[in-house]
Amino acid sequence: MPRILIKDVKQKIGAKVQVMGRVMNARLLSNVSFFQVQDYSGAIQTVWEKLVEAKAGDAVEIIGEVREDKRAKGGCEILGEELKIISANTEDLPFDLAKKDLNLQLTTLLDWRALSLRHPKVQAIFKLYDLLLKHYGLVMRDNGFTEVKTPKILGAASEGGANFFKIKYFDQSAYLAQSPQFYKQIMVGVFERVFEIGSTFRAEPHFTTRHVNEYISLDAEMGFIMSFKDVMAILNKVLAEVFAKIQEEGAEFLALYDVKGIAVPKEIPSVKLSEIREIIKKKYDYTIPEGTDIDPEGERLAGRYAKEEFNSDFIFITHYFWKEKPFYTMPSAENPKETEGFDLIYKGVELVTGSQRIHKYDELIANMKKKGIKPDGMEYYLDVFKFAMPPHGGWGMGSERLIQQMLGLGSIKEAILFPRDVKRLSP
Amino acid sequence: MPRILIKDVKQKIGAKVQVMGRVMNARLLSNVSFFQVQDYSGAIQTVWEKLVEAKAGDAVEIIGEVREDKRAKGGCEILGEELKIISANTEDLPFDLAKKDLNLQLTTLLDWRALSLRHPKVQAIFKLYDLLLKHYGLVMRDNGFTEVKTPKILGAASEGGANFFKIKYFDQSAYLAQSPQFYKQIMVGVFERVFEIGSTFRAEPHFTTRHVNEYISLDAEMGFIMSFKDVMAILNKVLAEVFAKIQEEGAEFLALYDVKGIAVPKEIPSVKLSEIREIIKKKYDYTIPEGTDIDPEGERLAGRYAKEEFNSDFIFITHYFWKEKPFYTMPSAENPKETEGFDLIYKGVELVTGSQRIHKYDELIANMKKKGIKPDGMEYYLDVFKFAMPPHGGWGMGSERLIQQMLGLGSIKEAILFPRDVKRLSP
Repeated sequence: MPRILIKDVKQKIGAKVQVMGRVMNARLLSNVSFFQVQDYSGAIQTVWEKLVEAKAGDAVEIIGEVREDKRAKGGCEILGEELKIISANTEDLPFDLAKKDLNLQLTTLLDWRALSLRHPKVQAIFKLYDLLLKHYGLVMRDNGFTEVKTPKILGAASEGGANFFKIKYFDQSAYLAQSPQFYKQIMVGVFERVFEIGSTFRAEPHFTTRHVNEYISLDAEMGFIMSFKDVMAILNKVLAEVFAKIQEEGAEFLALYDVKGIAVPKEIPSVKLSEIREIIKKKYDYTIPEGTDIDPEGERLAGRYAKEEFNSDFIFITHYFWKEKPFYTMPSAENPKETEGFDLIYKGVELVTGSQRIHKYDELIANMKKKGIKPDGMEYYLDVFKFAMPPHGGWGMGSERLIQQMLGLGSIKEAILFPRDVKRLSP
Repeated sequence: MPRILIKDVKQKIGAKVQVMGRVMNARLLSNVSFFQVQDYSGAIQTVWEKLVEAKAGDAVEIIGEVREDKRAKGGCEILGEELKIISANTEDLPFDLAKKDLNLQLTTLLDWRALSLRHPKVQAIFKLYDLLLKHYGLVMRDNGFTEVKTPKILGAASEGGANFFKIKYFDQSAYLAQSPQFYKQIMVGVFERVFEIGSTFRAEPHFTTRHVNEYISLDAEMGFIMSFKDVMAILNKVLAEVFAKIQEEGAEFLALYDVKGIAVPKEIPSVKLSEIREIIKKKYDYTIPEGTDIDPEGERLAGRYAKEEFNSDFIFITHYFWKEKPFYTMPSAENPKETEGFDLIYKGVELVTGSQRIHKYDELIANMKKKGIKPDGMEYYLDVFKFAMPPHGGWGMGSERLIQQMLGLGSIKEAILFPRDVKRLSP
């Protein structure tokens, strides 16, 4: 008898079918037993009017009759007849996967990742993540962006940052990319609009609930903009479309986290950095420390302000200070101490950083000099600006942080299958 | 006047429009000039009945009247009125982008990558690559696969290979992933069917036309298989669907390379390794060296055999030798010197490697011992096989090699935006 997918069982009421999958939520009694079987297409209840040997977690093959059952999810169940255990647990599970919530310490959750991932609520995180990847790609293409893949091994630790991992590369030294910045800008000169979904590596030595050392960045870069506001407008549109699709296709997963609406405003409110600092001082009596643009507490309060004032989970903060921003960021025409850029705060945490970039060679070199950055090893990038680069800008968005904030997860590591932090290299 | 996209110009015949883009193929005469303008949506001819200052490569803004022109691609052209040069080349281009073929040495092509990528024939490669990424994701999802992202920094150089790049990771040593093998197998225990599009790093010290040190692998892994033939069947189906979509949406790009059909047979022919060795000896009088399973010349001749015998660009070679295959590969039941796996040859070059994997803990440990591999650092992976892993298998496919073979490119590096080889770390 050929295998049938669980999603198709409901079309076979009254017939005998064979399904395969994993045993979930087993209740085994002496005269009657129930358990769910999950395959990649869905899950179904099976009922056994006899003693069965399956245990929660086993991989099984089942033959039985499909019965209508209006109370059951999907409207039917299988009356089990034959059971074959394809593969069994040979050790006890370290925790109970049948509980509604795992309620594990983060360390336990991650140390036993191969098993904690089998819990439905944990699975839901990565089903939503899958939807994010799918729809980011589709929506970006709908908006004229071409997907690119740029190298993650770099010859020079550029962008002036210190947070690079060093690699031994044959007889040379190399570095892991901490963003596709230079390459996506180069690609604006080719396709005008490009996006990338790619691995990103940051050798930041601190532990926080929102940082990891390896993550997937959702990047974009676009040409022929009038100002960075064009970038914000496209980002706003893209997020609105992606969130609508996640809401539509991921409702059952969002429901497990009691997340009802994930609406993106038609026009996300926007405020200048200098203004939000004032607002936070006045409204919440908190002073963002001097010498920083905005700190995590400031972002949290900016998120609170967005919610209270605009009933929005999102708020743009614009015009970050020149001295805090990378050399390729366009300085503001009105105030050279500020830049033509933005962060997007989502539920009180920075989700996206974006800006207009300098597109003229001389201006770029001058800005580097002002910042005391040497061009060594960056010539391949700088030279491009001798060849008619249009005004352009773009963004980098943390994919896992997006899911973390969407679901209100305590740590970004819950939104990564196998996260990497300062200490954690396994599993 | 707001910008209009070039793809929408044809709906504005008789009207005045503004377009922006890059000047391509300029023919500038004293009394009349012609040039194409390309934006991210398409290209259009512009005609000027006066002297204009635009040069090939400039980023420009144009205002003019749309005129019907049946001879023109798209059925219309723009009679130019105003021209604004947004950004100009400030140095001469190192080669002529207006030529039909660039005809550059590979080194020149890559050294000047930011500019060579602007040539329409080079752009076409990456437009096709974009279609491959898009449709691989969509087709895999249609077939029940969930997209995953697994870590590229590993705590242990596992899989027994020597070709790992080493990283300094805070106070530890780490390695760059040379495949998502262990993680995708773990994920079969979670979602049953998973796929990944991810960066892959191989510290192979040799130069060939088909190897690079960093590439994008299209991976898949699936559970509850009866044999590795189930994996081959899904791969065959996926490739057929993806190629059909590329043919449909990428016809204009394929045409630039005179590629007409890219059909995948409904059932790709399949032959055992031991048999193809015999066939190649008999038919083409070539002896594949002892001590190897099949060499590049053998693959080339296998491709020739597929074409001559089955009129197919593809051929599966199955049952590779146990001693050449990684420890997780399922040995054949009938002949333990062979394995339950396959390679897929595309136009004479290996494109995919796949197999059934060992899914029982004791068998896996026994196979490792036989191969003399120590489990150190792999415990996180091995332990999963104590927890009811179903029979499973999967594949890894080189995305850039696929495009290389599809278009008949001389080197895989032509199919990578910014390739990395033993010497090349820039651009």
